[in-house]
Amino acid sequence: MTAVPSADDSPGSDAAYADRARALDEADPLGRFRDAFEPSPGLVSYLDGNSLGRPTRAAVDALRSFAADQWAGRLIRGWDEGWFEKPLTLGDRLGAVTLGAAPGQTFIGESTTVVLYKLIHAALGARPDRRVIVADTHNFPTDRYLVDGIARATGREVRWIVPEQEAGVTPAQVAEAAGEDTALVLLSHIDYRTGRIADAGAITGIAHRAGALVLWDLCHSVGAVPVELDEWGVDFAAGCTYKYLNGGPGSPAFGYVAARHIAAVTQPIQGWMGVADAFEMGPAYRPHAGIRRFVSGTPSVLAMVPLEAMLCLIEEAGLAAVRAKSVALTSFALELYDAWLAPLGVRLGSPREAAVRGGHLTVHHELCRQVLPVLWEQGIIPDFRTPDGLRLGPSPLSSSYDEVRAGVQGIRNALVAAGA
Amino acid sequence: MTAVPSADDSPGSDAAYADRARALDEADPLGRFRDAFEPSPGLVSYLDGNSLGRPTRAAVDALRSFAADQWAGRLIRGWDEGWFEKPLTLGDRLGAVTLGAAPGQTFIGESTTVVLYKLIHAALGARPDRRVIVADTHNFPTDRYLVDGIARATGREVRWIVPEQEAGVTPAQVAEAAGEDTALVLLSHIDYRTGRIADAGAITGIAHRAGALVLWDLCHSVGAVPVELDEWGVDFAAGCTYKYLNGGPGSPAFGYVAARHIAAVTQPIQGWMGVADAFEMGPAYRPHAGIRRFVSGTPSVLAMVPLEAMLCLIEEAGLAAVRAKSVALTSFALELYDAWLAPLGVRLGSPREAAVRGGHLTVHHELCRQVLPVLWEQGIIPDFRTPDGLRLGPSPLSSSYDEVRAGVQGIRNALVAAGA
Repeated sequence: MTAVPSADDSPGSDAAYADRARALDEADPLGRFRDAFEPSPGLVSYLDGNSLGRPTRAAVDALRSFAADQWAGRLIRGWDEGWFEKPLTLGDRLGAVTLGAAPGQTFIGESTTVVLYKLIHAALGARPDRRVIVADTHNFPTDRYLVDGIARATGREVRWIVPEQEAGVTPAQVAEAAGEDTALVLLSHIDYRTGRIADAGAITGIAHRAGALVLWDLCHSVGAVPVELDEWGVDFAAGCTYKYLNGGPGSPAFGYVAARHIAAVTQPIQGWMGVADAFEMGPAYRPHAGIRRFVSGTPSVLAMVPLEAMLCLIEEAGLAAVRAKSVALTSFALELYDAWLAPLGVRLGSPREAAVRGGHLTVHHELCRQVLPVLWEQGIIPDFRTPDGLRLGPSPLSSSYDEVRAGVQGIRNALVAAGA
Repeated sequence: MTAVPSADDSPGSDAAYADRARALDEADPLGRFRDAFEPSPGLVSYLDGNSLGRPTRAAVDALRSFAADQWAGRLIRGWDEGWFEKPLTLGDRLGAVTLGAAPGQTFIGESTTVVLYKLIHAALGARPDRRVIVADTHNFPTDRYLVDGIARATGREVRWIVPEQEAGVTPAQVAEAAGEDTALVLLSHIDYRTGRIADAGAITGIAHRAGALVLWDLCHSVGAVPVELDEWGVDFAAGCTYKYLNGGPGSPAFGYVAARHIAAVTQPIQGWMGVADAFEMGPAYRPHAGIRRFVSGTPSVLAMVPLEAMLCLIEEAGLAAVRAKSVALTSFALELYDAWLAPLGVRLGSPREAAVRGGHLTVHHELCRQVLPVLWEQGIIPDFRTPDGLRLGPSPLSSSYDEVRAGVQGIRNALVAAGA
């Protein structure tokens, strides 16, 4: 099957979709935020906000002013003037703007991997007599590798849920897997491949009824899809800040520990920045009474600068409005998929229902791997997931509808040129 | 006792020392590098290079150009164009310029605490039947807290060496402490309080004769004092990059694993970036054959930018010349201590012999805590270590002799004003 690009403006034509996109952009209440991002020369369509958000202009300025004014200007005095508290003050702000988390429960740490490692150990320490970790085979590799290694090191066992691809991990599967032997349930709120949103509130309740704790990986939610950690009664959560929080390549991850657990849990990477008084430098590790106990070494203050700039924008826009635009962008992408990609035999790997659809769509075709470099060369940037998936992740504050239109149109054209 | 500032230029007078300092600066073969650093308005004397190095001008520019050109310009494509390999390529460069380490053994990781955590576990895993970790009570808190926690978690025991303050940890003490039950000896190459350099080559040999492995904390050496990891036969090393490597507040730490160990050791924070093929995203963690296995999650690429800029400067100056200037700066500081501080009852806590003296000097007086804020307010910035120490750590490429003179003179004046 082929779809021949049409030049007229009849319904369904390229021109008609271009008109639609322009109209949507004109009516976009968040459209003004697009100017808040640093220009990317040659960029036609960025569909990889789910992998690496674009830099805000404010972040570029803030990096310079941090280096020149704070680092050069205050030097070591900066530690007394906000840097030392930054993992907690910025954590609180992130918690308020994106996580539904009251203050004192969120910290900025190292990579998502390291933060998850700490939180998995903390949860197991809180359930010493339970030997099972429930996880799922579709979770992101780092999550799976971590529980595997930690289970082996601590004499636990991983009980793997195998989700049906379309349905994701269901509450029923968790109810079946989590029992009185279960210490921890580790899941992703949004599946990194399908973009499906799990029912985190329901699943958290089910795990709790079995006496287990829950750790949610929020990497693909935070900043695009509202999360209500306190309301859902979540125990632990972690996520990255370089996707929809535009923190920059490898920016530090965050962790959340519910207030009711903090004083009773410990984490294994016992560093000097996590103690009651770091500059006392005493003989024994005495963990801080609060969430600071999850801090280990010196926090990467410089690397937190872009994240802070993006949180200002999300706060200004409001996360509900961000989510509404995200849904509108992926709905438009779905419409274009139906018109332009489905006829080529491209398969949709994401839910159609907006309520369970996260910030990205995944489409599958055997030629995806082959067309990716062609698209990148043209400034059309989705990302690829082995073996045959393209993920389309517009970023609500930086993406236009016309960018989505240009991206899907470019994918169609590349697939047609490759023989689809 | 008091030292009255004198206005004349007789030997030993303030004016005479100011002349000396100026002459030393004029003759300084590395003097031109001082212009390579971002100006710090109001800064009179920065003596805290041992805690936080100043930003290079190149770093400030590079942060901007990284954000605008690489992050905004290349977006996700950057991962294929150098970012993914950055922890290893920059590690190799750091190894070559500062560590005496051949390629393929050094990685850039998270905080020093996290990197030490990985390396301690790796070492214990390589000596499964030995249950003792030898460490010393004067090591930096994070090192002590980590071994304490890891020993408890893995059923090991810490055998604590108590160094004589003046002598530091001696080879004889290590010979006595490390036996056939010893898995690992963890020590700092330079004592963070006294600045004394341990005999790392001799101690490594002694530990090896007992069948133990050695992990050196290089935080206070790297970039100021030459280190020869390969030549000394060291097994593991780690260190921070925000002191004499001017990487910025909380910049990522590095780790070193000797080539002969890499394929046989594992680390506990099993993340997706440490596997043989990260983008295969396969079901099981299969560690990369090389040093990449010590990488866990997504590396903090943005946070490595300033480090790279500083390595260029050290490479250009040559580490031997950097060390020579460091010795000359601390020798001059010692001379000023003798003239101005010793008469006030200030005690020297660092070795006088240059061969065992690292990049900083520590002086002690009960009024140090009290005068610190006064000094900081004046733009004279040493750092304080509880209970009564001031550390004077000039940074070889950014510090002038006159800055050292102004700093010690300011300390003297503040102590006199406080009643010393």
